Amino acid sequence: MTDRVEHHLCPRFERTFLLLGKRWNGLIIRVLLDGKGRFSEIEQVLSGISGRMLSERLRELEHEGIVQREVFSEIPVRIEYSLTEKGRALASALDPIQNWAEKWLE
Amino acid sequence: MTDRVEHHLCPRFERTFLLLGKRWNGLIIRVLLDGKGRFSEIEQVLSGISGRMLSERLRELEHEGIVQREVFSEIPVRIEYSLTEKGRALASALDPIQNWAEKWLE
Repeated sequence: MTDRVEHHLCPRFERTFLLLGKRWNGLIIRVLLDGKGRFSEIEQVLSGISGRMLSERLRELEHEGIVQREVFSEIPVRIEYSLTEKGRALASALDPIQNWAEKWLE
Repeated sequence: MTDRVEHHLCPRFERTFLLLGKRWNGLIIRVLLDGKGRFSEIEQVLSGISGRMLSERLRELEHEGIVQREVFSEIPVRIEYSLTEKGRALASALDPIQNWAEKWLE
């Protein structure tokens, strides 16, 4: 066994998994990987999520720098959500975990 | 935006992240990727974990089919923990997430 476990990585690593383990977050990231979307579009694709929950999750992901929110001064105002560079990098790191879950979990 | 989001994948996916987001689990899996180990060896490598917590986590990971526990009838009895095939597959899926966390999180 090694004694070189890098403990300093641990909090970041676990923080990532805690974020992704929260209901809807992984799915929101996957949906936005297909392109930017308005709130109502995302809500429609994720059937079952409440508007309040989606709003909360998007705010959290925005706070983490994973999702960005653009406001266009049109009438009516247009607001679009998309992944940041950080968010896109995360989305592509999800594939191996997803493949594992598909293969190994019932 | 797509309307082909595969909702049926979602619970498995989130279950995986919830499991990995639990304190110590990711680290235990990484440590066992280096080879099998006795309880006391794992405890020593993961400085800071209590014996009770390690025991609980190993039981949970064993229940999930990620870790296996082998008992050798020696005197004194020898018990070794190692990753199952499922566990080794998961461990290698962790690298991209870890690289992301290293690059993007403070």
